[in-house]
This record gives sequence, C-alpha cells and structure tokens, in this order.
Amino acid sequence: MKTEKEFHDFLENGDKYYIPNLTIDCAIFGYHGKELKILLAKWRGLDGWGLPGGFIKKKETLSNAATRILKEKTSLDKLYLKQFHVFGDSEFRRKEKEGLSFSPGNNRYLLPKNSWLHERTISIGYYALVEYSQVNLMTDYFIEELVWQDINQVPKLLFDHNEMLSYALRNMRINLYHIPIGYNLLPNKFTLPEIQSLYETILDKKLDRRNFSKKLLKLELIKDTKEVKKIGQHRSPKLYQFDMKKYNEALKNGIVLAI
Amino acid sequence: MKTEKEFHDFLENGDKYYIPNLTIDCAIFGYHGKELKILLAKWRGLDGWGLPGGFIKKKETLSNAATRILKEKTSLDKLYLKQFHVFGDSEFRRKEKEGLSFSPGNNRYLLPKNSWLHERTISIGYYALVEYSQVNLMTDYFIEELVWQDINQVPKLLFDHNEMLSYALRNMRINLYHIPIGYNLLPNKFTLPEIQSLYETILDKKLDRRNFSKKLLKLELIKDTKEVKKIGQHRSPKLYQFDMKKYNEALKNGIVLAI
Repeated sequence: MKTEKEFHDFLENGDKYYIPNLTIDCAIFGYHGKELKILLAKWRGLDGWGLPGGFIKKKETLSNAATRILKEKTSLDKLYLKQFHVFGDSEFRRKEKEGLSFSPGNNRYLLPKNSWLHERTISIGYYALVEYSQVNLMTDYFIEELVWQDINQVPKLLFDHNEMLSYALRNMRINLYHIPIGYNLLPNKFTLPEIQSLYETILDKKLDRRNFSKKLLKLELIKDTKEVKKIGQHRSPKLYQFDMKKYNEALKNGIVLAI
Repeated sequence: MKTEKEFHDFLENGDKYYIPNLTIDCAIFGYHGKELKILLAKWRGLDGWGLPGGFIKKKETLSNAATRILKEKTSLDKLYLKQFHVFGDSEFRRKEKEGLSFSPGNNRYLLPKNSWLHERTISIGYYALVEYSQVNLMTDYFIEELVWQDINQVPKLLFDHNEMLSYALRNMRINLYHIPIGYNLLPNKFTLPEIQSLYETILDKKLDRRNFSKKLLKLELIKDTKEVKKIGQHRSPKLYQFDMKKYNEALKNGIVLAI
C-alpha cells in the first residue's frame, strides 16, 4: 500500500479483502556485534510506536500473510518467520475499539461508527532474527518511520505490543536450545568466541566457555576449518563454520542443546 | 449444547454468537503407567474421529474459550491448557468448505449454500496432559463418543487433525525441557523410577538414570521425603515429592532441564 488513496480504500473496504478479526504482528530482532535490537514502526495516524503488522487476506496462508505483511511494511524479505503465540486474552484483544481515529497527513480521520476496523482483533505473533547492519528497510504508506531499538530501551508501545515483544523474546530464548541459529548472523567462518557471543547476547547471560563449545561440537553443528583468524601477534583463534547438512537436519528435526 | 434444537440453532445462527473464521482444537494427552494416549472424539454427523474443538465467542478470551469448549464437549475441567500452534496454511485451512453436511440422528442435514459454517476456519491448537485413569468423560450433543487412543495407534482423523496432533506432541516434548510436569500425574510421593518413567513415556526414549535424577535434584524440583516405598523384601526405593514452591516458580519462569 503506497498511496493515501489506497489507505482510504483499506479503511473503508478492507473487510472485502481481509479477515476482519485476525491480524499478524511481527517481532523482528536484529543482532550485530554484542547488541540485540527490535524493529519498531511508527504507525501513520496512530501517534505511537509498535511492531509491524497487518491483516490476513481471505484465502491466504498464515505463512504467506506474515511474509507479505513484513515485506510491504519494511521491505524485509525471505526471513525465517516463526509463530510464537496468539494474543486474544487482554482487555484490548477482547473488546471492540471505540472512536478509533487516524491522522494521515494533516487530516484527522475519524472512522465511521460501523467501520470493520472497530471489530475485535486477535493477533498471531511471528518473530525473526536478522543481522541488522546488512538489511535495507523501506516504509510503506502505513509506516512513517522504522528504527532498530535496543532491546533494553523499548518505550511504551501501542496496544499490547510490549507484551507481545516480551513473549517473542522469551520464546526465541527457549528456541535457542532446540533450533540452531547463526547462519546469516555470523560471518561464513567464525571463531568460538564469536558464536558464543551471539548466544550470550540473545540469552543475556554468560555461558561457560568450555561447556558451550563442547556441546556445539558434539552436535556436529560446527566444524573446524583448520584455518585460524589472525587477530594479533599472539592471538590466532581457530575458525569454524557450520556443517550445513547437520544444520539443516537440526532445523527440521530439532536439537537439545544443554548449554 | 445438549439437544438437537440447540444444535440446529448453532448451524443456522452460530455466527451471531461466534467469530466465524476462528476455532480452537484441543489435543488432550492421557498418561497412566507407561502409556501415553490421546483423547479422540467421534463428531456427530461427520462420520469420523477428531480432536475435540469448537468456535470462540465474540467477546470471550482465548483461554476461556479453550476451557469452555473442552468442558462442554468432554466434561474435563481445570486443565493447564497450553497454546502450541495456529493452523492456517494447509489446503483445508485456506479454502471454503463446499457441500458440508451433517447427519445428526438419522437425518442427513445439508447446510444451506450461504451457511456461515462454509467459511474458512483458522484453528488455534491447545494441549493438556492428564492422568487418564482419574478423569470422567461425558459427551455433549456434538460428540457421540470419546476414547483414549494409544498415541502409536491413531487412525486417519478428520480434517488436518493428524497434523495438529503431531505438532502438539512435538511441542509437549520440547516443553518437557522447560516446564516442570508430574504434579497431578504422579502419586503425591513417588520413586525416582516412577518420575523417570513419566518422562521416558512422553519422550518415547530411554534416559540415563543417574543423570536424570541428578538434574531434577539440582533444580530442586523434587525433594527426598526420607521415606521409602516397600516393594519387596530387598527393594525399598526412596520416596520423593515435589517442592511446590520451586515447582510453581519453575512453571512461571521456566527451567532448562538438560536430561
């Protein structure tokens, strides 16, 4: 959706194309160095920050809807989006919205009383993890601005999006023990401290060095390249890379990583 | 819903009370001895077995809807129901249903062409785990019969319910590493082999005896009662019980159980 005309068509006729009661919201985590960030969107006309999200088309699969919504609103594409929770319990998720208004451009736009957008929405949460220095973001008409916000400095968000974010983070942390990560987040060849730092940043805690590498090597997720990284005269740590066959098997079948 | 009259009212006017596109289905696992079973329901008029499920009321929370649906259709109450996945991707979940018919009693009942029940349904899956020898089941008008079926002998189910069941089982297995279980499944005081057998039955694999008990004791989830169980002249294993303070904390905050 790129123009004000399309925006108004959505407000007035969206229920012809979309399922009215069901939305998708995306928590996109960004990793770089030792930092973990979350992608926040400034919603046009709603005067606040939230997660990027949108409605599901009447005949669309949920996966396709999540991918489309994220691409339309942020230009991010081909992410491994993972469902983590459905939100339908909070006060906000149970009731119809009253007096909802938008202020696109300089005009305040109050929705008509019987607008489909007043209906209760239940929202399905998806999350993904990207290397944020390597992606280009672009907004659509709905979104005025996008920022990568440090995960420890998230402001009060729109609707129940703070709760969503905290669920997403908890779920991503649990999944670290069962889904391999790192491909697309680390260089092709990396040192043990580099991959450990990735896990520590997401878990927000220190891990035992010896134990961590032992477990990863035992699962055969990473393999020794026989090369070293030259850092200084006296430091040349070994370089590893993912065993992509094992990695993809682990993505499919799950792992138990007791780190 | 107890009578044929209410059933017909549901078929004809259900969209006044329920959100048309959204359902809940429940995978209720039953544990007893070394057996794991799944609760299957014979749906009236649909000529097949499936998971118990139903629609969400317009202003109901998802949690309340799941509890209500399960209670109405099976009489099971006060279960710890856990959301595990939303199903909206398969062919069945994307399209409208054509020529849907029910045969309540001896009458075949073809739904009118514009029936709300033809609409696409996206379904939220919940699972729970109970001690099946200790619960009483009762059906409502929708359900003709309920059975506890061995998890390894599940027939072809209605709709996408085999896929749902396999997601539920995988999710419950992963959650074993992060959510304590056993309270309400084991006697108040139990031996280490008894709790290990519970985990092994759910995971469908053998666990290392020494390692298993060490981990549970280290997390302080169970404590030595200083009593023993008299099995025979030469066998009197120690009895343990859950430390309910630690257990409830672990339910709330999660654990990492590397067994």
